[in-house]
Amino acid sequence: MEKFILNGKLVDRSEGYVDVEDRGYQFGDGIYEVVRVYNGQLFTNKEHLDRLYLSAEKLSLQIPYSAEELTKQLQELVTVNQLNTGIIYMQFTRGTAPRKHQFPETSHLTFVAYTNEVERPIDHFEKGVSAILVDDIRWLRCDIKSLNLLGNVLAKQQAAEKGCYEAIQHRGEIVTEGSSSNIFIVKNNELLTHPATNLILKGITRQVILKICDEHQIAYREETFTIDDLLHADEVFMSSTTSEVTPIIQVDQQKIGNGTPGALTRQIQKYFDQEIEKQTKQVETTTEK
Amino acid sequence: MEKFILNGKLVDRSEGYVDVEDRGYQFGDGIYEVVRVYNGQLFTNKEHLDRLYLSAEKLSLQIPYSAEELTKQLQELVTVNQLNTGIIYMQFTRGTAPRKHQFPETSHLTFVAYTNEVERPIDHFEKGVSAILVDDIRWLRCDIKSLNLLGNVLAKQQAAEKGCYEAIQHRGEIVTEGSSSNIFIVKNNELLTHPATNLILKGITRQVILKICDEHQIAYREETFTIDDLLHADEVFMSSTTSEVTPIIQVDQQKIGNGTPGALTRQIQKYFDQEIEKQTKQVETTTEK
Repeated sequence: MEKFILNGKLVDRSEGYVDVEDRGYQFGDGIYEVVRVYNGQLFTNKEHLDRLYLSAEKLSLQIPYSAEELTKQLQELVTVNQLNTGIIYMQFTRGTAPRKHQFPETSHLTFVAYTNEVERPIDHFEKGVSAILVDDIRWLRCDIKSLNLLGNVLAKQQAAEKGCYEAIQHRGEIVTEGSSSNIFIVKNNELLTHPATNLILKGITRQVILKICDEHQIAYREETFTIDDLLHADEVFMSSTTSEVTPIIQVDQQKIGNGTPGALTRQIQKYFDQEIEKQTKQVETTTEK
Repeated sequence: MEKFILNGKLVDRSEGYVDVEDRGYQFGDGIYEVVRVYNGQLFTNKEHLDRLYLSAEKLSLQIPYSAEELTKQLQELVTVNQLNTGIIYMQFTRGTAPRKHQFPETSHLTFVAYTNEVERPIDHFEKGVSAILVDDIRWLRCDIKSLNLLGNVLAKQQAAEKGCYEAIQHRGEIVTEGSSSNIFIVKNNELLTHPATNLILKGITRQVILKICDEHQIAYREETFTIDDLLHADEVFMSSTTSEVTPIIQVDQQKIGNGTPGALTRQIQKYFDQEIEKQTKQVETTTEK
């Protein structure tokens, strides 16, 4: 039976229950991370845990484990669940306390983690996906990877209803990010992506891509761009832990470039595959032709 | 032992657990209401349920009970828990499903309700409370009474850290609402409160107050007002289900008016007591001198 971490202990999945007065349930008062697992190994785990501790700090949550302890627990979970390709979902909430908006004086964080098998979306990598544009109605602390995700949920739902894979959010004319991804555009062989302000989540995949750009002399700027820039870009792609580098070939039924994954996007995918291979070994670089 | 409603059934409080993959826990994908109980009877229950169904509609949640069925369940809960003065907390989430942002194709809503004894804060009614001003950083659908409450939580926490009772939120110069209340100011015997747009929750107590104003020829406008208007108002008060009509006598350490509850505020408190008495009978109108 699948195992599951509840407050630092491995338990059966069937024991994965939390109190209804858990502040995660009543206020969304908590944070989460999704770590990719390739070949049974954690990918960019350090970067995810760094961000986890940063989110915790921004919400005055005290995670009761060191990064080393946490990593050990997550690795054990992957091993007992015999996970090869998939994700670890982990979540910390402020714990259970009588419902009051302000932080409780004493409460123990609730820590939950589980794994899921998730294949790499190779078909998306090769063919690209479609997206729609939606108003970004979220709060002004999108830099915190919190459980207040209704804005993202409603955006993604709109995309799903229109048969699209992602919703690209914008505040006024400025494109911020996807509903669960960062957005990059390519114009004249230069990448543009929204700076890591309070208006977007600083994606780990986004960071890996910028590192790749540094290493391979690909020009980029972390600067805002408009809806018009997006629609007239040479290439557009989204990045996320599970979507990796996924080309966006159509936005609001309008073709991007010639309507196929762009050359620079394919190049970055290739470098990203190498990054996975470097960190986790033996992984199949299935997107290569 | 305290009873509790879980998906329409009365259970022991100790059975009040939900799955960690409940969308309420992972996305805050749900809605709630808090209904006041005086003298063992539900106050403005119809208005709360009307708003509950409206919030549900805005999030495409299908509540599987009619208002009559729900009322019957809530009344039964109050009876078995022998609640005299307190609150019912009820919450509906989109239920348990493998984690994906978009709505699951099939999921059963999770319905939870419980009661708590909560006395009327008579001391606050008589002496007033202090507040601070904070930036309103919340999303743009504050009209939905959702579980995405981190903005409210962080605002209230700031107030608590400064020894204040409430945080008054503002977007730029415009005052929106409290962290868990609506805000009214009085200037020249006229009430002003933010219109019920997407930027505030349309409070039930707010609505009762406006009805009182209509009945007693008290002038009011549902119009935005500024921080400066607030600080220079003759009177300020907050309204909420548990705080009823609570005078705010100080904001950011600056006295409002002469620093005591204002005459019109006291008058509205008296009318509010009458409203409680009318709806629930035999209640002590303890704020009257």
